[in-house]
Amino acid sequence: MNPHLLSVDSLDRDHVDHLLHVAGRMEPIASRRQVTRVLEGAVLGNLFFEASTRTRVSFNAAFCRLGGSVCDTTGFTFSSMAKGESLYDTSRVMSGYCDAIVMRHPEQGSVAEFASATNVPVINGGDGPGEHPSQALLDLYTIDKEFAQRGKTLAGAHILLTGDLLHGRTVHSLIKLLSLYPPMRITLVSPPGLDMPSALVELVASRGHRIELRDSLACDFSDLDVVYTTRIQKERFTSEMSESFAGVSHEFVVNKRFMDARCTPDTIVMHPLPRDSRPGVNDLDVDLNGDPRLAIFRQTDNGIPMRMAIFATLLQVEELIEKDLRPVRWFVPKRLGTLDE
Amino acid sequence: MNPHLLSVDSLDRDHVDHLLHVAGRMEPIASRRQVTRVLEGAVLGNLFFEASTRTRVSFNAAFCRLGGSVCDTTGFTFSSMAKGESLYDTSRVMSGYCDAIVMRHPEQGSVAEFASATNVPVINGGDGPGEHPSQALLDLYTIDKEFAQRGKTLAGAHILLTGDLLHGRTVHSLIKLLSLYPPMRITLVSPPGLDMPSALVELVASRGHRIELRDSLACDFSDLDVVYTTRIQKERFTSEMSESFAGVSHEFVVNKRFMDARCTPDTIVMHPLPRDSRPGVNDLDVDLNGDPRLAIFRQTDNGIPMRMAIFATLLQVEELIEKDLRPVRWFVPKRLGTLDE
Amino acid sequence: MNPHLLSVDSLDRDHVDHLLHVAGRMEPIASRRQVTRVLEGAVLGNLFFEASTRTRVSFNAAFCRLGGSVCDTTGFTFSSMAKGESLYDTSRVMSGYCDAIVMRHPEQGSVAEFASATNVPVINGGDGPGEHPSQALLDLYTIDKEFAQRGKTLAGAHILLTGDLLHGRTVHSLIKLLSLYPPMRITLVSPPGLDMPSALVELVASRGHRIELRDSLACDFSDLDVVYTTRIQKERFTSEMSESFAGVSHEFVVNKRFMDARCTPDTIVMHPLPRDSRPGVNDLDVDLNGDPRLAIFRQTDNGIPMRMAIFATLLQVEELIEKDLRPVRWFVPKRLGTLDE
Repeated sequence: MNPHLLSVDSLDRDHVDHLLHVAGRMEPIASRRQVTRVLEGAVLGNLFFEASTRTRVSFNAAFCRLGGSVCDTTGFTFSSMAKGESLYDTSRVMSGYCDAIVMRHPEQGSVAEFASATNVPVINGGDGPGEHPSQALLDLYTIDKEFAQRGKTLAGAHILLTGDLLHGRTVHSLIKLLSLYPPMRITLVSPPGLDMPSALVELVASRGHRIELRDSLACDFSDLDVVYTTRIQKERFTSEMSESFAGVSHEFVVNKRFMDARCTPDTIVMHPLPRDSRPGVNDLDVDLNGDPRLAIFRQTDNGIPMRMAIFATLLQVEELIEKDLRPVRWFVPKRLGTLDE
Repeated sequence: MNPHLLSVDSLDRDHVDHLLHVAGRMEPIASRRQVTRVLEGAVLGNLFFEASTRTRVSFNAAFCRLGGSVCDTTGFTFSSMAKGESLYDTSRVMSGYCDAIVMRHPEQGSVAEFASATNVPVINGGDGPGEHPSQALLDLYTIDKEFAQRGKTLAGAHILLTGDLLHGRTVHSLIKLLSLYPPMRITLVSPPGLDMPSALVELVASRGHRIELRDSLACDFSDLDVVYTTRIQKERFTSEMSESFAGVSHEFVVNKRFMDARCTPDTIVMHPLPRDSRPGVNDLDVDLNGDPRLAIFRQTDNGIPMRMAIFATLLQVEELIEKDLRPVRWFVPKRLGTLDE
Repeated sequence: MNPHLLSVDSLDRDHVDHLLHVAGRMEPIASRRQVTRVLEGAVLGNLFFEASTRTRVSFNAAFCRLGGSVCDTTGFTFSSMAKGESLYDTSRVMSGYCDAIVMRHPEQGSVAEFASATNVPVINGGDGPGEHPSQALLDLYTIDKEFAQRGKTLAGAHILLTGDLLHGRTVHSLIKLLSLYPPMRITLVSPPGLDMPSALVELVASRGHRIELRDSLACDFSDLDVVYTTRIQKERFTSEMSESFAGVSHEFVVNKRFMDARCTPDTIVMHPLPRDSRPGVNDLDVDLNGDPRLAIFRQTDNGIPMRMAIFATLLQVEELIEKDLRPVRWFVPKRLGTLDE
């Protein structure tokens, strides 16, 4: 296996299945019933050249729950790089300090360049418009886990991807991962001009999946298993796009009315988060908070077992963990959130 | 018990006594004679949306000394919140990563709002002009501990609160905690216009304490047990207040001359820190450095056992710690500071 | 021994030998073959008032590899100090939280002032143009280790220091450490106006070493053991210096052609890093990447065992470590970098 995790493109079905399986075995630790110290003494370099508290803390906590220690870098500028240090030098130097490195960087390709200079495992935590593979893996893990609880399988599932399908790197990576599995039905609904890139649609179709493109949510989705909605990234719009979108944005909002009218009690709602909860923004509606179909917080929770699985796999300790468990001794609430179902 | 610690208002006498008692039991660890790992595997989210190195490091170190790991957030902006994420979402997401959360935020009420969305214990590390309950608890713990060493008790004590009693949230919280105890004598000395809010004075008086208001330190304090002084927060003054205060600020300075002339060798001096040590600023005078009555560093030291007690209590491990002790094996200086008495 | 490490001036030959010896004993841990937890429960305050990701992470990782926990401060401003808090107060407060403190600060002398107020061990991580003793120690450790692998000793060695010998604090500290050892030959090559301060040259000569000053690299260096090159810090130039240097900067570049033409296959190349890899900058050339003589990454790797040795010595646990080892159980690559020899 590649020592790094840079892109979902490097993953085949076996890799992904293995990661899903290992993530499942991390659940007793992630849900704080058990403690492991298998990575005690190991050091993670958590290099965030771009702000992202959520992703940074998720990687950090996952490594800590395996017993390791974390060195964080959160600044926008890396002092040495500001003095002309190459990614090659930075990478090789950090390799001398750390056993694994997570890197987020605003420039596409920078994490791969960084990784090419080191044999220490590097995980792409997001490189601008590029890749963010751990997000796609935790999304797939969420679908798989929610399905298992409902006696469903990925084969034959009906999944709706909606929102900005042009700019959303999470939906691009997720659809690639889904395409590795037996044929399913994938419906794409996006405002005009924000369609999924056709190369991706063709790739997925070529693997035997049924792709349907629609321009509205006003359809019958009574056999839908998953609604995956993403924020419309207006900050990336051209002025032409802004105009054409102005009148229609509310038509693409997933809210309680849509779920009740079009979907079933078994349809789950996902979102990569953060969502914009300000009034009038037309992101995923807060009126679904507390609704058991809203899976967005179970989804972020799944970042911990999946990122633990990524670390455990890259550092090759996944077979040691079960031998190293002890019960948690501190208070863990039955439900994490006050509205959790 | 409330799963969170948001305000001293939620604490009754029993809670406070329990925290003081648990803090006392943390002393062997806090003073680095013993090591415990009772929280090994637990993760603290230390979310500081407002800079405060001292408080942040104190919480961080306290959690580490219980065996846990810490994820720090130190930026002024929380990237997701800048994108419109609600406190509700942030709270629920962080709950999936962390076993306890300390939060400091410039907006009053924000920490309580954050806590209302999660069942994971949240500690208010300061919400602007609002609350900072761990500071009041460590202040009370300091008084209690210093008294015990001198054979004194809180009952019947004479405590002077001086400085800016209008804006200082630490004195507001401390006087509320003191008021839970048997009657004592509390003298309030503040410059004109910076008086303790009358609602607080009335509350404390209604609980049987003897409150005396004075406008000068030029009194006989020969039976005084504690001088608690706070910085005059000139940055919050109206221009009118600045003028009226200009000529008198030096009259409210606690220094060696005041202590020698007005107090006794048994009177201790406290301050919530930081103090402004620049010449002419008229904060607590540095001429008391090295004087055994100056308790300000013993007071900050007490932040560790008290914050350990808060974590241990909220995470319900306080009964496990004594079973889990080992001796410290590294060098610990007999005195932390070069001038400690 | 002094409880702090503030300057190489406080170190005599015995101290340095002891640190080199302890660093050698840290190698099994630093190279990730063994794990120790001897500092479990200890807390490091890693206070960086000036950005330096490399040095900060190196200290952080070294402390973690001994089993301790780290509280990082990375901001340019220390909130309390901005409110007029003295270094004395900051130092005494941090001493209550931490078992050891690393401090970097832009002002010369500030770290010593900070250390004078505490009995907790303080390590100078760089105080502006002042000292950075751990860098000099890891440089000496690198020379010693590379020599041992080649059957050489420091006695009689020929070492070239080149680049900006006027401003480079690392070469100043290194030459002081080298001067504690038996007579060697030290050649200094710097552009006009960037010579090693004469007081330092005299000190080293007075200790029996043979010092040669040259103004060009175009010499025969066929008996050279070490080339230590530093970045020309143009940002510190006067305008006169900039002019006189403009035409000659490329003449002081250490590159493959120089190494092949003037040196031997046994000559190692060192640099304190970061190096400026941008084209035309004339820092150490990247064409030596992958060349076994390029010791710069082995040199930064050595920061871990040397900083572990510094912590272990100051905290007096160096004799306990061998009793506390377990094998590493995670994947460690045979070579850290893809071009390592």
